[in-house]
Amino acid sequence: MPRYAYVNGAYVQHRDAAIHIEDRGYQFADGVYEVATVAGGRLIDEEPHLDRLERSLTELFIPMPMSRRALRLVMRTLISRNQVRNGMIYLQVTRGVAPRDHKFPAHVTPALVMTTRRIDFAAQEKFKKGVSVITIPDLRWARRDIKTVGLLPNCLGKQQAFEAGAFEAWQVGADGFVTEGTSSNAWIVNASGTLVTRHLSNDILHGVTRRTVLAIAREENIAFQERPFTVAEAMAASEAFVTSATSFVTPVIRIDNTAVGDGRPGPLSQRLLGWYRDYAEGLRAGA
Amino acid sequence: MPRYAYVNGAYVQHRDAAIHIEDRGYQFADGVYEVATVAGGRLIDEEPHLDRLERSLTELFIPMPMSRRALRLVMRTLISRNQVRNGMIYLQVTRGVAPRDHKFPAHVTPALVMTTRRIDFAAQEKFKKGVSVITIPDLRWARRDIKTVGLLPNCLGKQQAFEAGAFEAWQVGADGFVTEGTSSNAWIVNASGTLVTRHLSNDILHGVTRRTVLAIAREENIAFQERPFTVAEAMAASEAFVTSATSFVTPVIRIDNTAVGDGRPGPLSQRLLGWYRDYAEGLRAGA
Repeated sequence: MPRYAYVNGAYVQHRDAAIHIEDRGYQFADGVYEVATVAGGRLIDEEPHLDRLERSLTELFIPMPMSRRALRLVMRTLISRNQVRNGMIYLQVTRGVAPRDHKFPAHVTPALVMTTRRIDFAAQEKFKKGVSVITIPDLRWARRDIKTVGLLPNCLGKQQAFEAGAFEAWQVGADGFVTEGTSSNAWIVNASGTLVTRHLSNDILHGVTRRTVLAIAREENIAFQERPFTVAEAMAASEAFVTSATSFVTPVIRIDNTAVGDGRPGPLSQRLLGWYRDYAEGLRAGA
Repeated sequence: MPRYAYVNGAYVQHRDAAIHIEDRGYQFADGVYEVATVAGGRLIDEEPHLDRLERSLTELFIPMPMSRRALRLVMRTLISRNQVRNGMIYLQVTRGVAPRDHKFPAHVTPALVMTTRRIDFAAQEKFKKGVSVITIPDLRWARRDIKTVGLLPNCLGKQQAFEAGAFEAWQVGADGFVTEGTSSNAWIVNASGTLVTRHLSNDILHGVTRRTVLAIAREENIAFQERPFTVAEAMAASEAFVTSATSFVTPVIRIDNTAVGDGRPGPLSQRLLGWYRDYAEGLRAGA
């Protein structure tokens, strides 16, 4: 079965899916994206993802490429055509195609690309075994709340993690506080069982999974604090984990060369993962 | 006459020039670029541009897409096919096409795209009349010495300048010192006739035109200092100008709402522009 992509109005075979070389996404990283999970054929947290897409675009003065209703339809059509039961859908919106000039083109139509990928979440070892993270300086720009495709520092950090045998790199500001991972939000659980994750600001991505996990914590009466934490605090924590659309709640068992807790996935991390999976599978009400 | 672009081994009509949606330049800004001037059919500062291209790629662990000899040949062929006598050539190299994953793909071939544009430099008013600049906070990442396509903050700044009726935006660090423009280096001339431009570091792009202008200043026994300067110092300067491959030496006559000097292009700026034009036209020996 061929795999399809959606590119500016057409469903095309993935291998033929192309955009013009003067798409501003290619020449300027002048665009944004979303990654949403598909579980059991259902889109998880669709509305918060579309809310964030719209917010990112608004911050960059790019209009929505189509109505939400139309976006939802295209997403569903692509998921259905590609027979994705479990996996993800990727949406990218750029300012469009125009002769190269830094300032915004006077007349331009936003470009919209979507792809999907199947993922067997159930088979992933990371949920059971946990993962290692390294810490690196946060080199990124000042507006990490906008989900732009300008991901080069994230790629460099992820590669550094990979070469160190780790799953993720936690980025650390000049002030010594962890901002977030290169493609996930960072969490710790302190000795009294309180969840800690950085508060929302321009310094981090406003993670949709982060939001859902906080809602679950609230429902389960688990104490949490939204504030920055240092690497030292994280290394001394009882538990740590990361959240993202495709990582769900992934336990962190090692930070640089220091074991977190007893070096195994922590009990609260595992419970949160279980609740999140119930939520993703529709076994738990909306967060 | 059709206009051609070079895309991954082929000369194609510009309107048909396309890259795959999973080119990492599109999804991650995982690539670099160069812009070089063509004057009288000659490429200006070709070797420094190729040096910088190679340096940018090395910093990102991307191999050169082909030998320098081959790159030079492709550049010349495209300039010739497009009959560019005066204008510019744009080169973009990305890590290549691979299924989306932040870390570097195991097997991938760098992508290479080139385009040209004709520019009538002689007709440009900016050289005669000078331009205005505004000042904005520098929001960019920590490695501005790598000439990546991650130019979104630059685009936002340039657009802000455009909306303010200005030509360029000078970006200012949290320490109050000017780093550079969004697509040019920033210079001032102080009361004693000394040129001042920021020293090379990770904070600014290592401008090829900046380099050439410094070499000309050295030859002409004009004093210069490579050091940071504040917005206040710039506003109090005798002259100011910007340099880039397509701006040459463009006099700055206004910074925010303050006239620089008497509000007209300064004499040293004009002499430097004249010398640079002689250099570009081959009337002045290599800098």
